[in-house]
Amino acid sequence: MPNISNRGDLMPASPIRKLVPFAEQAKERGTHVIHLNIGQPDIFTPEVALDAVRNLPDKVIEYSHSAGNESYRRKLAKYYQSIGIDVDHTEILITTGGSEALTFAFLSCLNPGDEVIIPEPFYANYNGFAIAAGVKIVPVTSTIENSFALPPIRDFEALITPRTKGIVVCNPNNPTGYLYSKEEMKELRQLVLKHDLFFFSDEVYREFCYDDNKHLSVMHLQGLEEHAVMFDSVSKRFSECGVRIGALVSKNKDLISTALKFGQARLSPPGLGQIVGEASLDTPEQYFTDVYQEYIQRRDFLVEELNKIPGVVCPEPKGAFYTMVKLPVDDSDKFCQWILSDFDHEGQTVMMAPGTGFYSTPGKGMNEVRIAYVLERKELARAIEVLRVALENYPGRQI
Amino acid sequence: MPNISNRGDLMPASPIRKLVPFAEQAKERGTHVIHLNIGQPDIFTPEVALDAVRNLPDKVIEYSHSAGNESYRRKLAKYYQSIGIDVDHTEILITTGGSEALTFAFLSCLNPGDEVIIPEPFYANYNGFAIAAGVKIVPVTSTIENSFALPPIRDFEALITPRTKGIVVCNPNNPTGYLYSKEEMKELRQLVLKHDLFFFSDEVYREFCYDDNKHLSVMHLQGLEEHAVMFDSVSKRFSECGVRIGALVSKNKDLISTALKFGQARLSPPGLGQIVGEASLDTPEQYFTDVYQEYIQRRDFLVEELNKIPGVVCPEPKGAFYTMVKLPVDDSDKFCQWILSDFDHEGQTVMMAPGTGFYSTPGKGMNEVRIAYVLERKELARAIEVLRVALENYPGRQI
Repeated sequence: MPNISNRGDLMPASPIRKLVPFAEQAKERGTHVIHLNIGQPDIFTPEVALDAVRNLPDKVIEYSHSAGNESYRRKLAKYYQSIGIDVDHTEILITTGGSEALTFAFLSCLNPGDEVIIPEPFYANYNGFAIAAGVKIVPVTSTIENSFALPPIRDFEALITPRTKGIVVCNPNNPTGYLYSKEEMKELRQLVLKHDLFFFSDEVYREFCYDDNKHLSVMHLQGLEEHAVMFDSVSKRFSECGVRIGALVSKNKDLISTALKFGQARLSPPGLGQIVGEASLDTPEQYFTDVYQEYIQRRDFLVEELNKIPGVVCPEPKGAFYTMVKLPVDDSDKFCQWILSDFDHEGQTVMMAPGTGFYSTPGKGMNEVRIAYVLERKELARAIEVLRVALENYPGRQI
Repeated sequence: MPNISNRGDLMPASPIRKLVPFAEQAKERGTHVIHLNIGQPDIFTPEVALDAVRNLPDKVIEYSHSAGNESYRRKLAKYYQSIGIDVDHTEILITTGGSEALTFAFLSCLNPGDEVIIPEPFYANYNGFAIAAGVKIVPVTSTIENSFALPPIRDFEALITPRTKGIVVCNPNNPTGYLYSKEEMKELRQLVLKHDLFFFSDEVYREFCYDDNKHLSVMHLQGLEEHAVMFDSVSKRFSECGVRIGALVSKNKDLISTALKFGQARLSPPGLGQIVGEASLDTPEQYFTDVYQEYIQRRDFLVEELNKIPGVVCPEPKGAFYTMVKLPVDDSDKFCQWILSDFDHEGQTVMMAPGTGFYSTPGKGMNEVRIAYVLERKELARAIEVLRVALENYPGRQI
């Protein structure tokens, strides 16, 4: 019997994967499980996008251009230009979700064994893309006490080796909800110029910035034409997680032409998803206003209510729709399992993502969980009540 | 300015990529270019599949299960069972095209530096998947004189090293149209058992087998439960190249669970494509009969007419819709460029894929081209006439 690969063994399970059986068992017992663990919004996909695919004119669903349909790329470039990002359609590759944009960037920019520095906690799936590409993730730790702000630049400097080839940030951040400031982005700009690194910026939550904070894209920074690489996606912006359409954007022509070779090998990005993505660019402004209002209400409610629970610390997220929350527990992996396997409150419980899965440094995140506020307020209220009672009853409570 | 990766430099351009500018120039001159170079069929996508997406019921396009929708996998398993392949839905991962199935299999089964043996000429994009996964392709040469039959097993044996972890075949074959016989498949079975190798079989052209030849799947072979890995796709079977839906099928549970981890990292396969793929399984039998009749007519016509041209040798393909053809030319790369840049016949010319791109061994395929017969007969007739006249006039003619 042939063995599977070592890198298969290295692949971490997703932070919530080991909880799935316990959630299923809870449901089988008749317990209603409220999902705070996933980034699947309940927001409707724009009608204009659904209509585009419902009115599909084609008789043959053909391969598209490997970089994505030119009409889509041109329209997407116009959107970027409208928010001050100076790119044209030749500087954009349409990808199969933001996931593939990261994979293509890692494959195109980094050799096996090269290193990227990423502030932790970070989006857990970066681990998978890095392992697939043979790239080493070097974490630099941000802290809840500091609302997960960018760690000091000296902490980055201390981690730089001859193999360091890039910095990755997610802005606004999944899982913390932190929005990097203009000053922080400029500090990173200096760092990547000093060490000639790629600056990879995952900006799929760009539209979700609260409290009049403005999003600064890596593409807005001056003098980074060769260094800046932006990842984008329709998943969150238009509530189109399932269509798997993203984008890789850079003014570095070598990078784009190399990434396109990997794109050509897989022929083309999903065709129907591209139709949806292109049509989505005509979404009326009111849609975004409504979505924004909905999320800001959810966030305000969630943060206020969570911080009322004794021992719970929830910094106020400035973007995205996640928050990393500190809980008064011994071990959030155990707590997240216990609340599914051994607890219910009036027939209900909650599923959360344990913090450890978002850290590379062993032992970090053990008293944190990630909560996604992608549910309506009534459901969030129930979830918070369940959590409050659970924390009162959890045997591993630590306060 | 940071450098791109070495593996980016290693990525070969697709066999026809360098011809694209010449084809565009020809079109700008007003020359009609007949495309014999691509595997994009002109056959209509089944109505039942198009209707499924036109009647899209969802209000939110959500992530699907990372392995693909269970309803789709269950239905696909039934189809496989109907052709004697004993698998259930837990032994199937829905992937983003057959491309991703290969990538996941390479990542899951092979470590960087491991080797797979592939009969050449082979589908050129295997190179891209191998480079992305850090895997080395070791070619074993098949010959046009032998209609591209499986090379002798002793040729495989001679190439096996401690790093050899698998054999890859494409059956029916792209680019040769060869269909491996029961005897050849059994020889390969013995080989993989003897050396404990994975047997990767790309079967995306399964339905395109002519002259009453029956397709034998790797999954039909006894005793290979842990070794056999099948790749599939809706692209050719249902003329749905653009939806990017494929499948990875294996009874090796370690492999499936490892591949699923890579699948989880990229969240899910395309959602709309899955709707199309699942609905396609209800395509009426008449569709396949019609398509089969169409292709057999095209093949018979093409093979007969090509072999009438002096110096041209075209073996009769038993499957798929490609044929590797020997031409009386000095260098098929030069000829394929010349016919676009310096030639037209009554305002028309043809684009073909030069043979060298399908071989790993340098110098092989220099007098071969791949021709796809995915055009209607009238167009094929014009293409053959153009080719005949071009060969009479080509300065590098060798006969």
